[in-house]
Amino acid sequence: MGLEATILYVDLTHARVWKETLDEATFRKYPGGSALAAYLLLKHIPRGADPLGPENVLVWAVGPLTGLPISGQSRLSVSARSPLTGAIGDSQSGGFFPAEMRAAGVEAIVFLGRAPEPVYLWLHDGEAELRPAGHLWGKVTGEVEAILKKELGDPKVQIAQIGPAGENLVRYAAIINMANRANGRTGMGAVMGSKNLKAVAVRGTNPPRPAMPREFAALARRFKELQERNPGIVEFGRLGTAGVVTSQNYQGGLPTRNYTSGVFEGAEAISGETLYTTYLKERDTCYACTVKCKRVVEIHSPEIEVDETYGGPEYETLATFGSYCGVSDLAALCKANELVNKYGLDSISCGATIAWAMEAAEKGLLDDEGIGLRFGNAQAMLKAIEMLAHREGRLGNLLAEGSLRAARSLGPEAEKLTVTVKGQELPAHMPQVKRSLGLIYAVNPFGADHQSSEHDTAYRSKPGTIFRQRLEALGITERMDGKDLSPAKVRAGYWTQVYYSALDTFGVCQFVWGSSWQLYGPNELVELVRYATGWDTSLWEIMKVGERRLNLLRAFNAREGIGREADRLPDRLFEPLKGGPSDGVALDRAEIERALDLYYGMAGWDPSTGLPTRARLEELDLGWVADLAGL
Amino acid sequence: MGLEATILYVDLTHARVWKETLDEATFRKYPGGSALAAYLLLKHIPRGADPLGPENVLVWAVGPLTGLPISGQSRLSVSARSPLTGAIGDSQSGGFFPAEMRAAGVEAIVFLGRAPEPVYLWLHDGEAELRPAGHLWGKVTGEVEAILKKELGDPKVQIAQIGPAGENLVRYAAIINMANRANGRTGMGAVMGSKNLKAVAVRGTNPPRPAMPREFAALARRFKELQERNPGIVEFGRLGTAGVVTSQNYQGGLPTRNYTSGVFEGAEAISGETLYTTYLKERDTCYACTVKCKRVVEIHSPEIEVDETYGGPEYETLATFGSYCGVSDLAALCKANELVNKYGLDSISCGATIAWAMEAAEKGLLDDEGIGLRFGNAQAMLKAIEMLAHREGRLGNLLAEGSLRAARSLGPEAEKLTVTVKGQELPAHMPQVKRSLGLIYAVNPFGADHQSSEHDTAYRSKPGTIFRQRLEALGITERMDGKDLSPAKVRAGYWTQVYYSALDTFGVCQFVWGSSWQLYGPNELVELVRYATGWDTSLWEIMKVGERRLNLLRAFNAREGIGREADRLPDRLFEPLKGGPSDGVALDRAEIERALDLYYGMAGWDPSTGLPTRARLEELDLGWVADLAGL
Repeated sequence: MGLEATILYVDLTHARVWKETLDEATFRKYPGGSALAAYLLLKHIPRGADPLGPENVLVWAVGPLTGLPISGQSRLSVSARSPLTGAIGDSQSGGFFPAEMRAAGVEAIVFLGRAPEPVYLWLHDGEAELRPAGHLWGKVTGEVEAILKKELGDPKVQIAQIGPAGENLVRYAAIINMANRANGRTGMGAVMGSKNLKAVAVRGTNPPRPAMPREFAALARRFKELQERNPGIVEFGRLGTAGVVTSQNYQGGLPTRNYTSGVFEGAEAISGETLYTTYLKERDTCYACTVKCKRVVEIHSPEIEVDETYGGPEYETLATFGSYCGVSDLAALCKANELVNKYGLDSISCGATIAWAMEAAEKGLLDDEGIGLRFGNAQAMLKAIEMLAHREGRLGNLLAEGSLRAARSLGPEAEKLTVTVKGQELPAHMPQVKRSLGLIYAVNPFGADHQSSEHDTAYRSKPGTIFRQRLEALGITERMDGKDLSPAKVRAGYWTQVYYSALDTFGVCQFVWGSSWQLYGPNELVELVRYATGWDTSLWEIMKVGERRLNLLRAFNAREGIGREADRLPDRLFEPLKGGPSDGVALDRAEIERALDLYYGMAGWDPSTGLPTRARLEELDLGWVADLAGL
Repeated sequence: MGLEATILYVDLTHARVWKETLDEATFRKYPGGSALAAYLLLKHIPRGADPLGPENVLVWAVGPLTGLPISGQSRLSVSARSPLTGAIGDSQSGGFFPAEMRAAGVEAIVFLGRAPEPVYLWLHDGEAELRPAGHLWGKVTGEVEAILKKELGDPKVQIAQIGPAGENLVRYAAIINMANRANGRTGMGAVMGSKNLKAVAVRGTNPPRPAMPREFAALARRFKELQERNPGIVEFGRLGTAGVVTSQNYQGGLPTRNYTSGVFEGAEAISGETLYTTYLKERDTCYACTVKCKRVVEIHSPEIEVDETYGGPEYETLATFGSYCGVSDLAALCKANELVNKYGLDSISCGATIAWAMEAAEKGLLDDEGIGLRFGNAQAMLKAIEMLAHREGRLGNLLAEGSLRAARSLGPEAEKLTVTVKGQELPAHMPQVKRSLGLIYAVNPFGADHQSSEHDTAYRSKPGTIFRQRLEALGITERMDGKDLSPAKVRAGYWTQVYYSALDTFGVCQFVWGSSWQLYGPNELVELVRYATGWDTSLWEIMKVGERRLNLLRAFNAREGIGREADRLPDRLFEPLKGGPSDGVALDRAEIERALDLYYGMAGWDPSTGLPTRARLEELDLGWVADLAGL
């Protein structure tokens, strides 16, 4: 008896649930999270499935580290074919739900078909049942949290659900747990909505145990010391991701007014420091994590009420509703955060779509139905969220489609203003000042994403910094001072993308394990996986897991005819930025094409098509995927 | 001050020596041994250099682990363009010389040009000088050992040298240290001879220290326990590599009568067990190694005298002069071992060339000048060694060219009997019963080699065996029971080739670190490198080092126009074997071609040419090599 995975199948059409066991050898190849989800998707979704039709399959997955008593492990992957991009969808969230799901004895849930009426899934200690959710339909996330906890008679129940946005098939609807953690990207909430699946409630009383308890305990003690000695992580805990508003703006990398500038005059007003000294009520955390980076804000004033149930804004939320939209009213941004969590929306795509709409309206390309969609208008921004979440009016319906679909219905002038890759709106890290991100935004299988590789700031870091140490363990030993997209940066981009791909597979938090604060690094991950699973693993095997996931996602897309031509950055990135340290800076098309050629070759993909080769897939034990995708 | 490498340059033409420092960052990319040698070769050899001309460059290299007090680290790489294959040459040896060279303060020696008269290099504690060697020329290795130790006045001097075979430019001449350890393969001794370089004598009193002494000491203690708990390594120490004669024969994999059969009726007579109970005088070892796998034999009888100075036969020597030649006279094989070490010859190419000549003579395709070259004739075998080492007569001159060149001078019928890849004779592990070896023999940049990957016996091993554990750490978790060359075996072949490539770079012994007995495994190597160097390394970085070396070698060949067409297995492997468990077994051409296609793709090389792509080279920070080789 080794470390097997339990897969819960839920046939929504026929209201049947059953479990299957994934043997340890297969689990080790697809060890949880995004890789396990992609494995199950490829096994179950037919080619050409309508993302919002019953043939689409929705997979939720945790991994072999989830629920262990250590920081940064309680993460949930949700995948399906994306209604936003048509490519594979992929999203991650934290909270207490993931650990609770594992304690309930399930590593993955596969939702098939479509329920005839709204339902929710109640999973408790290995038992699963579908229950009617008619009484929950139309309700916001906070209400549903309260109703279900009462209905199930246990305040420790964890709930992940869609809000009205998911029910209304907003193409970037999110899945929300704890009413304030989002599987935000690629519209997984709309897929849930299309299946009449309102929520999943879980309760588990059997937390997992590490395979090597003594070594695990010693590692946990070492981790505690590492954390205490790391001033960066303390500061990160104090300010949360919001802490980077200031530094992004300082380097000219805070996307402003729909990505036309990298500096925002209102940056200080919406900074993590300002948030800390104004509306922050308390810090929040995920299961067993001592970093406490999550925000909780509360506002009660004559002008505005913000409910603490919905947490507080992350950096991305502050930027997309703030600088993207030219809005410097921090209270309004807190409100926007409340709304996206209440209605179940991806804050990045939502804010970015509104920013696009503001520019289009200013240019007379879009009818704002009188709500005053203009850069800087906080009230219009909030009104737009309400409208799109409920698909209210022509404008609400238009924005609910995401910026690219909306723009295409308006014509080429409007489309030129969109800032998406594969139809997914760009996050708030600018490729113009972090060149390797341009490459990764372009090639990432599920559209532009800032949490799929390390950022250039790390590559430029000085010897002795924690960035350097973490990169060193990956074998990236050279410093890359230049602002260009050199071959070395392509390599670093690819290798860190592979590492981040492994992080999203083992289901560990990038703020603890990968990104800027890097509490722990690659070699610590090797140890954690070894002690958690008992596998005599190595960073080579873990990186191969990361490559396996990337190739699974890419092969999924290949089967749908999505290849290199979809790895295209938006025109806006090639237009010079205005103002500040990045004034006049633009990406260079020839540089990007050269980087793409190199990247595909490094990844073992055919540079002419951008598709994985059979040999590469065989190297990763994915011969079956080559057959499936016709590669 | 980090861990730099000291490169000693020796311009033989102008009798100049000087030292250069390789900075730590570069050293970390090419950390010693074969990778460092290939790096230096590519920097210094012009395209199209005559292997036996002054433009060829000869590099000797050790690594950052060499000379540390731990088993299996005292290894020397010697590389140059090979006079046997025309491709890159590469060879490894053990002994005390490598550790002594590092204690003398030098990580690599680059020999340039050609001395007008015979010279030897005297390197002592960082001081280097060229000295006349006229008095040594023509002398056998044992004599030169004695003369130089006396001349230099220090019995602790370590000497690596060529014998008469190297002086006579026998194309598979070896470099011999301690008079019984050989850098055998690819004719590096002939390159030394062509440069009028008779010997290198070293003495160093400053042994290296690990960067992390406390961790290193703890690791050494753990290693001691591992060794004591490992019955396989004890047995390996008892019988040496000779121990596998019996098991190879049992599985029908003991190459017999020029590779026409996999079973030898005289196997027991030439086995490690028989050697142990007859002529074995004592066991010998390399610097700081407690395994003691080396043999020392001594025979004094009316019929035959074998001098203990020249050690004792390895498995390869027993097979190539024994079963290859149909010779079951163990004393004669001990004598053959004496002769190859005395004259400085690669025992594999020498024995295999004689075996080829026996078959050609039996078939009337070769004039044996009356010495009776027939399978089973031990005296003719010994006579042939004498003749070829001294290029005596037409026959000696013919055999000194290696089997492929010799055969080509005799015509296509004779060539059909050769068993070489790229002109290098196959070692005594049969691809017919270890299919993945066929692939690796074909693609290995310096010709057929059995120490460039794991063998199929490991892939077929059961759970719980040490093979399985070591493969598991490399991420090879599936068992491959089949006797075919499946995609899984291609992957395992490639990954273990990469690992072995790293072993030959860090300069650690495959019998301790990699091959059948596997005392330590990949994860132990990560720790050793970390504590020895202070680098926060990982198995990912170490495997990338392995890939970097493979790509350097391959790019060297590419510059000389050597690509896929040279990755060709000899016809003999496609003819059915005769007798025993492998009766009727032959390789399948279509299977090999499919495996090659997959392999090149996995390696990131163009399947149509077999050459590294620029993208792959850039991934390994080898953009400069792509420029140099026109890739």
